[in-house]
Amino acid sequence: MSLFLSVVSLEEAIRVIRTIAPTPGEEEIPLGAALHRVLARDVKAREDIPGFARTTVDGYAVQAADTAGAGEAVPALLRLAGEIPMGRATATRLRPGEGFSVPTGAMLPAGADAAVMVEHTERIGDEILVKRPVAPGENVILAGEDFPAGGTILPRGRRLSPRDAGILAAAGCDRVTVYRRPVVGVISTGNELVSPGETPGPGQVRDANGPMCAAFAEELGCLPRPCGIVRDDREALGRALGKAVAECDAVLLSGGSSKDVRDHAAQVIGEKGEVLVHGIAIAPGKPTIIGKAGGKPVIGLPGHPASAYVILHTLAAPLLSAMSGCPREERRVAAVLAENVPSQKGRVEFVRVRLDDGRAIPCFGKSGLLNTFAGSDGMVRVPAEREGFETGETVEVILW
Amino acid sequence: MSLFLSVVSLEEAIRVIRTIAPTPGEEEIPLGAALHRVLARDVKAREDIPGFARTTVDGYAVQAADTAGAGEAVPALLRLAGEIPMGRATATRLRPGEGFSVPTGAMLPAGADAAVMVEHTERIGDEILVKRPVAPGENVILAGEDFPAGGTILPRGRRLSPRDAGILAAAGCDRVTVYRRPVVGVISTGNELVSPGETPGPGQVRDANGPMCAAFAEELGCLPRPCGIVRDDREALGRALGKAVAECDAVLLSGGSSKDVRDHAAQVIGEKGEVLVHGIAIAPGKPTIIGKAGGKPVIGLPGHPASAYVILHTLAAPLLSAMSGCPREERRVAAVLAENVPSQKGRVEFVRVRLDDGRAIPCFGKSGLLNTFAGSDGMVRVPAEREGFETGETVEVILW
Repeated sequence: MSLFLSVVSLEEAIRVIRTIAPTPGEEEIPLGAALHRVLARDVKAREDIPGFARTTVDGYAVQAADTAGAGEAVPALLRLAGEIPMGRATATRLRPGEGFSVPTGAMLPAGADAAVMVEHTERIGDEILVKRPVAPGENVILAGEDFPAGGTILPRGRRLSPRDAGILAAAGCDRVTVYRRPVVGVISTGNELVSPGETPGPGQVRDANGPMCAAFAEELGCLPRPCGIVRDDREALGRALGKAVAECDAVLLSGGSSKDVRDHAAQVIGEKGEVLVHGIAIAPGKPTIIGKAGGKPVIGLPGHPASAYVILHTLAAPLLSAMSGCPREERRVAAVLAENVPSQKGRVEFVRVRLDDGRAIPCFGKSGLLNTFAGSDGMVRVPAEREGFETGETVEVILW
Repeated sequence: MSLFLSVVSLEEAIRVIRTIAPTPGEEEIPLGAALHRVLARDVKAREDIPGFARTTVDGYAVQAADTAGAGEAVPALLRLAGEIPMGRATATRLRPGEGFSVPTGAMLPAGADAAVMVEHTERIGDEILVKRPVAPGENVILAGEDFPAGGTILPRGRRLSPRDAGILAAAGCDRVTVYRRPVVGVISTGNELVSPGETPGPGQVRDANGPMCAAFAEELGCLPRPCGIVRDDREALGRALGKAVAECDAVLLSGGSSKDVRDHAAQVIGEKGEVLVHGIAIAPGKPTIIGKAGGKPVIGLPGHPASAYVILHTLAAPLLSAMSGCPREERRVAAVLAENVPSQKGRVEFVRVRLDDGRAIPCFGKSGLLNTFAGSDGMVRVPAEREGFETGETVEVILW
């Protein structure tokens, strides 16, 4: 256990994160509540879908052989044996030389093996003139042709879209087994912090990180649990963290900005478990902590919201995504740098940028400001081996 | 009022859709429930943020003038006047020649106008040696520098991200005014339909469109209300539509696949209001209906799920998006066509494709199948003036 700040690479930090992420649990929920949830198991067809041969056109169910050689000049002549309504079976069997009138989607009668489009026929009383031949299976979906019984309909890990909801409904999955949403505790520390609903006194500011971390966890398929604002006090922090890890599956702990709060956080995590990483070769976010407390993963984030957001994207996201089973949908766009971005070799730097007509404009300025954070569109990652990027270089912007 | 199928262009249909979309309502909700909701009003700062001048470094609050000319060789000499803890004000005023010890984010004492980083100082008892000069305002955020009172923090129409939650929290917005979610009724018609929880009898299939339309509306910021499965019967449909438009802000009505259900839908919409469009020059989805019933917008969708999904994307999306205020995030990627896509001039065709390593592979095959729909990644739009696209052409794929 190390309580000292010995810096590891970002890659190593992410590797450690992956080792402490618990496997997601499962739960069964109604299909109507499953939008954007993630399938915990392959969904297989319990029966042939469709359960019977269906027509795909309005027209006549026939035996294909009866239409061989049919044409405009010499149509095939069939006898109308009846009409098959939607949603019903017919007890009658189609015999050679017969046709049944069918709407699109109707069940094919026994004995039929194809359907003729109404546009290619002419009806004279009880006689059907067929003016184009059909092959066996033409204009028909066979039983099980969509999904045979036992076949996979949607794979495990699929984040359910509206389209998937339709497909699962067709397959009779009115309930689905999805990954359980892990509960993520959110603690903010800092003597200067008051809650967003309070009016700050002299020297005080409202807690931005709590609501931000909670919403970030929610976006990644977790259930955030606000665990309040804690003073920069080792005992108070110890109690809050103990309660949070007892109630939650993971904890995001964002530090106040006082000089020694990091030490409190690392000490308290160490007392309740293990500090695995304390110090990462990145900027911002160097003093980030990765550890376990009460057997649960804990990430200690920087106090400044803009820095905390970078750590949420780079380190909390892989943890929360692994725990919820919810795939990350990081969006990236290419853009041309409008200004030089200097960077220190040996650490990965994340530079906030705003996008303007294909250009990435770095949001420099005072580090503590929220307005440049609010006005930014994403960040550019400067690799550890680079000393920055130059004006005019094409860079990849990781969109917020 | 036209009950007859006179075909209009897709552009005209979208224009009509826009004219019947009601303006979104507003509601105030807690910030913690506002992720992905859309701001109905500009959020302005009610007070200066921050409310006081703060340091952005660990070090000493000073008068900049006292550090003029300071250097390693000849440091400026200041007297330590005290320490300002986080979250507190100090009653003492900083006098010339003095410095206050401050952590990052602490309130600047009256009389100070800058901060010196601790790295550029040396402390000997109560004396501070300052080895680098600072300018007025350096390492300090002034009161209101982030957001001055009355300044806009986030604009109306913004779909709230986790970052926005943090910024709004900092600004004291523990409640936010967002667009109300419109209630969208979903009706499925068809004699062949049973609900997803039922086992279909001979000739029957489960309703896929209901759950799909509901999830699609939910994704676009609406509250879906399932209004059940209705027989292909004019009176039954009339009752169901009457109830739905009385309870909901809009209705998505998906047709059964029988030959004449479209007429029922158009007749019933006409009886309860007005059919504005019945027939659009697109494929699939030509018999789509746009109308109003009981003053509410109604879209009549094709019965086949894959066709209905195209209409959801092309016509329901602009309606629902306008009603919920939720911006559409249509994702598009470029891909090279792996096969010719023939198309009929004079109508816009949407061809389902799956993506494989930068190639778009058209999902041809029987129109009634769900498995090609399940396996597709999006659709290619072939404009009305084109007779299709050729193998090797780069096309834009609208991702599902």
